[in-house]
Amino acid sequence: MRIRKTLLLNIVFLLILSPVVGADELPSWNDTPPRSAIMHFVDRVTDSDSAEYVRPAERIAVFDNDGTLWSEKPIYFQLQFAMDRVRKLAPQHPEWKSEQPFKAVLENDQDGVLAAGEQGLLKIVMATHAGSTTDEFSATVEDWLRTARHPRFDRPYTELVYQPMLELLSYLRANDFKIYIVSGGGIDFMRTFTERVYGVPPEQVVGSTIKTELSVRDGRPVLVRLPELDFIDDKAGKPVGIHKFIGRRPIAAFGNSDGDLQMLQWTAAGEGPRFCLLVHHTDDEREWAYDRASHVGRLDVALDEARKNGWTVANMKTDWKTIFPAASPNR
Amino acid sequence: MRIRKTLLLNIVFLLILSPVVGADELPSWNDTPPRSAIMHFVDRVTDSDSAEYVRPAERIAVFDNDGTLWSEKPIYFQLQFAMDRVRKLAPQHPEWKSEQPFKAVLENDQDGVLAAGEQGLLKIVMATHAGSTTDEFSATVEDWLRTARHPRFDRPYTELVYQPMLELLSYLRANDFKIYIVSGGGIDFMRTFTERVYGVPPEQVVGSTIKTELSVRDGRPVLVRLPELDFIDDKAGKPVGIHKFIGRRPIAAFGNSDGDLQMLQWTAAGEGPRFCLLVHHTDDEREWAYDRASHVGRLDVALDEARKNGWTVANMKTDWKTIFPAASPNR
Repeated sequence: MRIRKTLLLNIVFLLILSPVVGADELPSWNDTPPRSAIMHFVDRVTDSDSAEYVRPAERIAVFDNDGTLWSEKPIYFQLQFAMDRVRKLAPQHPEWKSEQPFKAVLENDQDGVLAAGEQGLLKIVMATHAGSTTDEFSATVEDWLRTARHPRFDRPYTELVYQPMLELLSYLRANDFKIYIVSGGGIDFMRTFTERVYGVPPEQVVGSTIKTELSVRDGRPVLVRLPELDFIDDKAGKPVGIHKFIGRRPIAAFGNSDGDLQMLQWTAAGEGPRFCLLVHHTDDEREWAYDRASHVGRLDVALDEARKNGWTVANMKTDWKTIFPAASPNR
Repeated sequence: MRIRKTLLLNIVFLLILSPVVGADELPSWNDTPPRSAIMHFVDRVTDSDSAEYVRPAERIAVFDNDGTLWSEKPIYFQLQFAMDRVRKLAPQHPEWKSEQPFKAVLENDQDGVLAAGEQGLLKIVMATHAGSTTDEFSATVEDWLRTARHPRFDRPYTELVYQPMLELLSYLRANDFKIYIVSGGGIDFMRTFTERVYGVPPEQVVGSTIKTELSVRDGRPVLVRLPELDFIDDKAGKPVGIHKFIGRRPIAAFGNSDGDLQMLQWTAAGEGPRFCLLVHHTDDEREWAYDRASHVGRLDVALDEARKNGWTVANMKTDWKTIFPAASPNR
């Protein structure tokens, strides 16, 4: 009895100390170069005998969200949320029937929405993302995520996350990486689901923000979301956001579009071992195929830069065994 | 030999699993109510059999810095840095000899600096905190911290941290709390020393920010600090900063002045067990005694609120055995 308990303790102890390795890692990745490149990088920075060893506190990995961790077609999911919200709020806004870009949204005129440009988009965002308290906004997003379904796949949006990337997040975490999401998406929109879906807690989400203001309602402090941009966490804004929120340079960065280029360059420019990866959408059958000519998630300059700098490019069609996880009632 | 190894493994294993308890905790705190209040709160939220149990991910504790973790007299240490910096940069700025508030700084005219008010202060901050890259600025602060000495105690500023609070940070961390600093001070100023001095990594520091901009120098991306305010993390800004950077409500908050009032109220207003503590500067001999009438670190409304709401007030003179740690060559 005494011996068995000892044996058990030894096993538990060994499990605690053992690094995570082996052929079972990243099971949804084919045995093609990207998988080996990821594992080779992790081996280099976690081997304490290596000159390239990186202490756990410095193992920061940053991930774009739209198109890198979940899909972004036919339109960004957050824009879909905003348009659904316009339709829901329309009875309180009779003026929207004749006011662009709301008119176009209400008439399902996607070209009309696009024609309204950035200013039109901003109007939609402010009308649907501001005015409420932070708690009310989170509840609204959670409600939408629970009920909305993707037009092509007829699944909740939070199921259209990439299984190989979920495995990658777990693999990096098991190797003491701290994962940050660094996305052009709204920070409070993402924070409603990142912990449940990606295992990334709210404090490790960096995104675009609108201003909030402290107020008192029914004797309790609340934060009210104001219709005023605070920070756009995209393109050259990504290194700015990384510095502001994290305060140190990542050693690994994962993106899928030109909007991620500066984040990858900022990561790559640091001292010591670095890893940069682009997800290349090449699979029209299982997901979508798009790059240089796409309006959403254009991948053009960054693809050239990846080739020039030896960054890893994950080809969805050939490098990924599966795209989406099996449907789960809990997701 | 086999037995001894087993014994050793058992001990190591027990150490890993044991919660941190006992009379040896918080040794620099006298056995007065604040110490018991802290430990009682931690017991409540960490006891998994308790209805008040809080899972580790939600154990967020926020700490003000100036006057809560380190001293803030005779002037905020960061303002001292800025004034030293004005003196150092003066040869490149001959115009400062006749331009306020720089003239007052160069003539050691503290009343003149104060008379310049907020606008004057802002001028000093922008002249000394902007214009460089983020890396250059960090190096400048590190250099100052290495060489500057406090006028009264003749010690480096990073040694004027409160030993009881360092023990409190360790105690909370040992109980799976995640510690954030939430300070009106500059985020990049603080991040140069918080990990080394407090064990708080840069990504767990929330503070005031100026804007930064991505640029390219010698073919490498850099972030340049712009002379433009981005966010003031003080008073009503503290809950805003907490929400923006952390994205969930803390369960414990520690401050020392009216600038922390809204942070404590925001923390206290959450559901479930909460803990709020004010450090009351009452010890003119070992540190300073000030509250309602002080210009720096005024504690007036928050002291009344603490009494009304049953928040804990730590009286430096009677609750703390020691104020500062013993001098260390490594700090």
